[in-house]
Amino acid sequence: MRLRARGQSLLADWQRLVLLGGLDPLMVKYNESINFDRILYKQDIRGSIAYARANAEAGIISRREFEQIEKGLQQVEKEWATGIFAIVPGVDEDIHTANERRLGEIIGKQVAGKLHTGRSRNEQVVCDMRLWLRDELRAIERHLADLLHVMAARAEREIDLVMPGYTHLQRAQPIRWSHWLLSYCLVFATDLEHLREVIRRVNRCPLGCGALAGNPFAIDRDMMARELGFDGLLWNSMAGVADRDFVTETLQWGAMLMQHVSRWAEDLIIYSTAEFGFVRLADAYSTGSSLMPQKKNPDSLELLRGKCGRAFGHMAGFMMSQKGLPSTYNKDLQESVEPMLDHVKTVSDSIQVANGVLATLTTDAGRMRAALDPSMLATDIADYLVRKGVPFRETHHISGRCVAKAEETGTPINELSYDQFCGIDNRFEKDIADVFDYDMSVERRSAKGGTSKASVLQQIKVIREML
Amino acid sequence: MRLRARGQSLLADWQRLVLLGGLDPLMVKYNESINFDRILYKQDIRGSIAYARANAEAGIISRREFEQIEKGLQQVEKEWATGIFAIVPGVDEDIHTANERRLGEIIGKQVAGKLHTGRSRNEQVVCDMRLWLRDELRAIERHLADLLHVMAARAEREIDLVMPGYTHLQRAQPIRWSHWLLSYCLVFATDLEHLREVIRRVNRCPLGCGALAGNPFAIDRDMMARELGFDGLLWNSMAGVADRDFVTETLQWGAMLMQHVSRWAEDLIIYSTAEFGFVRLADAYSTGSSLMPQKKNPDSLELLRGKCGRAFGHMAGFMMSQKGLPSTYNKDLQESVEPMLDHVKTVSDSIQVANGVLATLTTDAGRMRAALDPSMLATDIADYLVRKGVPFRETHHISGRCVAKAEETGTPINELSYDQFCGIDNRFEKDIADVFDYDMSVERRSAKGGTSKASVLQQIKVIREML
Amino acid sequence: MRLRARGQSLLADWQRLVLLGGLDPLMVKYNESINFDRILYKQDIRGSIAYARANAEAGIISRREFEQIEKGLQQVEKEWATGIFAIVPGVDEDIHTANERRLGEIIGKQVAGKLHTGRSRNEQVVCDMRLWLRDELRAIERHLADLLHVMAARAEREIDLVMPGYTHLQRAQPIRWSHWLLSYCLVFATDLEHLREVIRRVNRCPLGCGALAGNPFAIDRDMMARELGFDGLLWNSMAGVADRDFVTETLQWGAMLMQHVSRWAEDLIIYSTAEFGFVRLADAYSTGSSLMPQKKNPDSLELLRGKCGRAFGHMAGFMMSQKGLPSTYNKDLQESVEPMLDHVKTVSDSIQVANGVLATLTTDAGRMRAALDPSMLATDIADYLVRKGVPFRETHHISGRCVAKAEETGTPINELSYDQFCGIDNRFEKDIADVFDYDMSVERRSAKGGTSKASVLQQIKVIREML
Amino acid sequence: MRLRARGQSLLADWQRLVLLGGLDPLMVKYNESINFDRILYKQDIRGSIAYARANAEAGIISRREFEQIEKGLQQVEKEWATGIFAIVPGVDEDIHTANERRLGEIIGKQVAGKLHTGRSRNEQVVCDMRLWLRDELRAIERHLADLLHVMAARAEREIDLVMPGYTHLQRAQPIRWSHWLLSYCLVFATDLEHLREVIRRVNRCPLGCGALAGNPFAIDRDMMARELGFDGLLWNSMAGVADRDFVTETLQWGAMLMQHVSRWAEDLIIYSTAEFGFVRLADAYSTGSSLMPQKKNPDSLELLRGKCGRAFGHMAGFMMSQKGLPSTYNKDLQESVEPMLDHVKTVSDSIQVANGVLATLTTDAGRMRAALDPSMLATDIADYLVRKGVPFRETHHISGRCVAKAEETGTPINELSYDQFCGIDNRFEKDIADVFDYDMSVERRSAKGGTSKASVLQQIKVIREML
Repeated sequence: MRLRARGQSLLADWQRLVLLGGLDPLMVKYNESINFDRILYKQDIRGSIAYARANAEAGIISRREFEQIEKGLQQVEKEWATGIFAIVPGVDEDIHTANERRLGEIIGKQVAGKLHTGRSRNEQVVCDMRLWLRDELRAIERHLADLLHVMAARAEREIDLVMPGYTHLQRAQPIRWSHWLLSYCLVFATDLEHLREVIRRVNRCPLGCGALAGNPFAIDRDMMARELGFDGLLWNSMAGVADRDFVTETLQWGAMLMQHVSRWAEDLIIYSTAEFGFVRLADAYSTGSSLMPQKKNPDSLELLRGKCGRAFGHMAGFMMSQKGLPSTYNKDLQESVEPMLDHVKTVSDSIQVANGVLATLTTDAGRMRAALDPSMLATDIADYLVRKGVPFRETHHISGRCVAKAEETGTPINELSYDQFCGIDNRFEKDIADVFDYDMSVERRSAKGGTSKASVLQQIKVIREML
Repeated sequence: MRLRARGQSLLADWQRLVLLGGLDPLMVKYNESINFDRILYKQDIRGSIAYARANAEAGIISRREFEQIEKGLQQVEKEWATGIFAIVPGVDEDIHTANERRLGEIIGKQVAGKLHTGRSRNEQVVCDMRLWLRDELRAIERHLADLLHVMAARAEREIDLVMPGYTHLQRAQPIRWSHWLLSYCLVFATDLEHLREVIRRVNRCPLGCGALAGNPFAIDRDMMARELGFDGLLWNSMAGVADRDFVTETLQWGAMLMQHVSRWAEDLIIYSTAEFGFVRLADAYSTGSSLMPQKKNPDSLELLRGKCGRAFGHMAGFMMSQKGLPSTYNKDLQESVEPMLDHVKTVSDSIQVANGVLATLTTDAGRMRAALDPSMLATDIADYLVRKGVPFRETHHISGRCVAKAEETGTPINELSYDQFCGIDNRFEKDIADVFDYDMSVERRSAKGGTSKASVLQQIKVIREML
Repeated sequence: MRLRARGQSLLADWQRLVLLGGLDPLMVKYNESINFDRILYKQDIRGSIAYARANAEAGIISRREFEQIEKGLQQVEKEWATGIFAIVPGVDEDIHTANERRLGEIIGKQVAGKLHTGRSRNEQVVCDMRLWLRDELRAIERHLADLLHVMAARAEREIDLVMPGYTHLQRAQPIRWSHWLLSYCLVFATDLEHLREVIRRVNRCPLGCGALAGNPFAIDRDMMARELGFDGLLWNSMAGVADRDFVTETLQWGAMLMQHVSRWAEDLIIYSTAEFGFVRLADAYSTGSSLMPQKKNPDSLELLRGKCGRAFGHMAGFMMSQKGLPSTYNKDLQESVEPMLDHVKTVSDSIQVANGVLATLTTDAGRMRAALDPSMLATDIADYLVRKGVPFRETHHISGRCVAKAEETGTPINELSYDQFCGIDNRFEKDIADVFDYDMSVERRSAKGGTSKASVLQQIKVIREML
Repeated sequence: MRLRARGQSLLADWQRLVLLGGLDPLMVKYNESINFDRILYKQDIRGSIAYARANAEAGIISRREFEQIEKGLQQVEKEWATGIFAIVPGVDEDIHTANERRLGEIIGKQVAGKLHTGRSRNEQVVCDMRLWLRDELRAIERHLADLLHVMAARAEREIDLVMPGYTHLQRAQPIRWSHWLLSYCLVFATDLEHLREVIRRVNRCPLGCGALAGNPFAIDRDMMARELGFDGLLWNSMAGVADRDFVTETLQWGAMLMQHVSRWAEDLIIYSTAEFGFVRLADAYSTGSSLMPQKKNPDSLELLRGKCGRAFGHMAGFMMSQKGLPSTYNKDLQESVEPMLDHVKTVSDSIQVANGVLATLTTDAGRMRAALDPSMLATDIADYLVRKGVPFRETHHISGRCVAKAEETGTPINELSYDQFCGIDNRFEKDIADVFDYDMSVERRSAKGGTSKASVLQQIKVIREML
């Protein structure tokens, strides 16, 4: 009974609120976007100027009205840029409303009221987003190119460092440190190539799509697209206002890039342990411990790895938001803005931090070489026998027996005697001793993409051509 | 060549930065958390007081020192609460540092420097998070109970409204509006039950875990847990500092709740179309269009549906961050805080907005009834024949033939003549006419969980018992 | 005590298993991939032939040996194709082992043992996957083009159907049915363009990468790439064996395509409700109910919508698997194969089913037109006034007052009297009556991308040029 | 023109297919579930028997008819169990249809046609799934308990092994190997506790919900629930048929468990590198390399880590499928079955494989101890000074200076002379030498949850009490 009364009283409270014509203040907050979309102020103004100019061209507003609008909007932009724009709480629910409200105050409502002629919030929102994103992605393109530059430069400079290459995190074969560097550098180079394709799809013009059905005043969409630097039009007005694939694709791209960052960071975290000791991070990218004075923690790399999750979360979340939505604009799409903003910042910062980490870490050639283990040359033994005409599968077994012999006898494989080798297989000759040279081993892998110096230099060339 | 020079020059720039002992300002920003973890100031202070008290009890600090610490911390808390706490940029990298720095200014570094004795940032961070989250989840528990109250009250009040029930979004069988309401209410009631289990796992004490290996001063962990209202201890210090499952589980719970919200919103969005017209949202939860003056859009419901993605994204992202992490604390775990904060806010706001929407929407009994279609009683015809002893599979075919006959002849099925029925199957009797009553139809489904009035009232009772 | 004994006895059991040199049969199953990777048999054989040919060219095996290998492998392929290949359980753990084992039986181990010379399982796996995926994606490309063909053909044929366009699922403005169709068609056309970029990145050659460090016998990688139809090389051997981005990118692409399918299906599910009634699915794509004989459920569309989740799950899961992996090959990467196989099948089937649904559904021009509501022309009223020189923001309010007047008086807005219009604003003239024509309304939106016939035909042209 | 013709011809082909009344064979495949839901045959039969018994009790079918049905169904079950059940392609689209078809052949359609009276496929599907899942989860519960038993037994047996504890993968403080083991064991124990809650929510009875509106024959739902071992009812028929939260919650649970597995596997993969060398996997859980005879790869651990992604993908995908679905049954929900089946298998297998790996790996006490580094005792130095009354923050700096001095002078910190210590701070006394004992260090952390022997044994006790 008490519970029943509680329900009825809550119900009555809510209903009273509404009968009195009131707003739910939480709903107002829940709905408004000015807190985050204000970052788009410049794009909003540029889009409005282009739109007004096209309307003037079409004769929908006069040349004089356009000039007033343009001048007024330029002043609004200046107010934002100088930090004096005053948002009116509860009124300026988004950046578009805010700018138009302020324009009206500056040039009068009569003319300001013509700005929006034939235009919908739907096309305006997405125009702002596309302009902003295009410019940010171009900045990311530059940061990524810088990272490739630094990677290539280090790879070139430190080409003589030889270290263990791992598969399954087990020592596998000797490689050049540069080869490891380039294994990521080429992946990031592909990211760069991919990014350029994404930008092309981001950079298409929605202006002129109206709310969903197009523009009734025969506006010249191509003219607006040119003014705003778009590469082309969105060709269907309904798709134009509903399409957030440019966001999704950006989030997918960024989530994949951050996966590459996470793997790169993982390697370096492992390489900077006391046990591996191949690299040492600069102090600027490490931190100490609040409890353990001896600690030097690779926080930068861990954050880079961890933010892979954040970038993925943006993508996964926004894809969920879009799933099964009816076509055209639905308010759900407002959920595209915040993930986009944070994602772009995360990715951009991460590339730059990664570059700082990489550029300033120091390598320890001694620890690298010390970690080379003669048994890593077992494949070279097999290859040696292949060159003597033994079928590979057989050489693999023979080489395996050499490894076993080394383990049994507690002798490093390169110190097995010639007799011991011959005892295993009589096709071994004296020149087997030549196999046990790490530098020669990396040079032997001279096919394209391999560890030889020439192959590594060729990779650097390929990367530079992609920049 | 030019490209090579560019790489080398970038590399040199970075390295110069570091050789000069400088910080990378971007890295400083990338690393610091004060912008978001400041929200935990109160929990941080409460945890510190409890910790200092236990250290005093253990004789590690004196009673007098404890009192100074407690008083100092209370002042710090007041400074936060009144908005006068001044964060020192670049120094106060997180809330823990900030509070300790300020405490030192107030009571002197000599005593303030004892606060942290034997304690690690690792345990402190997670203690703050658990305290904060526990309290927030309890608030959500209350909001959710309110939603159940309102749903149950409406279900009780409007029990006589009959509308089509849909499967596959096709009209299926008549149901009570209240039955629809309760179909969600029971799901949310299970969410409530589930939430209480989550809270129990959140509310466990990590204090005394140290950096990873435990506390060396035999601190009384149970005493701290009691003071802070925890339900129990985390029993292994390594797990204690690394465990963010309390966050993951909260995110999973919230993501599932928001899925329920998304389905509920979807139904109401469809029910409030012009074509369905069963409900009408209060103006407080709708918005107009910038271009189309006749529009009234269910923005509140669309945001609720859309934010399902955001809630999911937090979860998916943070699970990604944790995947494959080495044990104990890694900086990647810092990525747990922001998703938690935004998630909790999203879920809490959404429940409240949903309650407002529901409490204030109006139903249209006429449109509901008008949407009932006699062919929805086809199952009742089959059931009628079952009661006459015809096997169900056969009744299903007979009833199907009645539907077909109605379609062919363009007659509503309830207006087929008795002869037409008998022409289809001679087991029809005069009382077939009684089948065609929607109210009787819903009353016939009287087993537990069905649409009859008694069953619906019983569901309300079940829900109230869960509150 | 009992619990302690249980632990010790379990421990002893496991250890006994291993001391006896046994395998854990569950582990064998857990590890093997032959159940799913056998689908790659043809690619595995083609890759092996190309590899052997290149080894012959390099002088590592003789021309005669190559011919034996080629002939033997062709026989193995035939055995697979005709279903007589017998997998040896516990031995043929994957397709690569199975093919090589069988080859040895056919041509003798001596020569068969040379096939693998200098080649690693790592490069072989990924070569097979890339070949398979490239061919499957090309098939999907054709299915997608077919869908575009059908969409465009229907859009052309039914260009005169006018229906409500919705935003927020509320009636907004009249549109052509074809315009709705094209709103998806253009999105799918972008998917097609995007797919072609993905294929280019899939179609790169890993052969010659070795286990991680490259090939030691100076194999001609370009020759292998040409023979297998690859577009280029993977330029770093470590990256080459570890890179599964071609899978991730395919999964991302497919997940986004399926989102488009989910939105398209959502629209059609709603349009095929009794309440909307715009379209009716062919029986081939609907199903009945086990309980309700009158039901006709759009199961095909619901499956299409639901499988959006499955496609997303593949992507999300595999991205999780890759996060934070150390570089080069780790066994975790085996988890790339099954998601790829099921994803490609899901996407391919879904496109074809969607095409069938679309091609065979019937439209109901009458229901479409009946759903047009005069208040949907409110924007046209505003536009009318704009043409008379009234500022847009003012016209929006005037038009809103007309809508309100219509509601108040219970008169459809198009039946308000001329006096009533003038009572609202004296700039209305007699020609206001001309506004109330749905066909004229859609024709007025004649800017590019709009609903006018010319704009719609232009969109069809744009799409056909993308094919 | 050619393109236009292609579209028209495709359209015509599809339409011809349908006008001829044909099915789309791909759609038939796309729709049917018999390939995977046949696994539920036993549950389907048990549910049908319980349902028929309740219908007999309610007088809807006769006692005699029930007996025929029961006997017939038992025979069907036997046919499945012995592998002789013959699925009729194109007819038996799912397990429910298949069983009912076969029952009709055995006992005649007249009586078999009564089985389904008042029952819908919707409730039947979900009843089968819940029964199956409950039983599988109980099996998983047992496997998980076994894992805890083995972990606890090893922890008990090897309690004297001391190794470095890591934070940020940097050596931090000495810990017991057992303490590391228990850090996971306690996490898995919480998983077990959590699982028991999940099972309770899975184990609720949907029978009697009908298609959506409930049962019209007053069936006794409690009786069916009792017979099938359910813990309670689903209380609303609409929710009952639509609710797949029991699947989602299982997937969430399993995805979190697999995250724990992934972290545990990551640690062990690192610990089994040549560089760490703390553990060595049994051969049964390792594999060799096709190219490198010396390799021993921890494939089992990598698969365990990788399958974390698969488990997550199931969850993410199915959550996506459910997002924004209208209420009650929609065919999209068919997408719940396959993820559930594969998820349960993945989780169950993974727990067992993990147990095998753990039970049979060997530890290397020597390598563990050799990895202890005196600087890991820096915190102990600080703690020593705390005990002398120095404020902790100060001790932290002093200890840091000792670490620095050790580095500068190239002397291990434990070999600094007493004078060197006093030179740093004059509060050091002779007993500083006692600090440098790793075993004492772990014993000093004696608060609950710490590394001391008593604390570790207490943890084992706590775990055993949770079993």
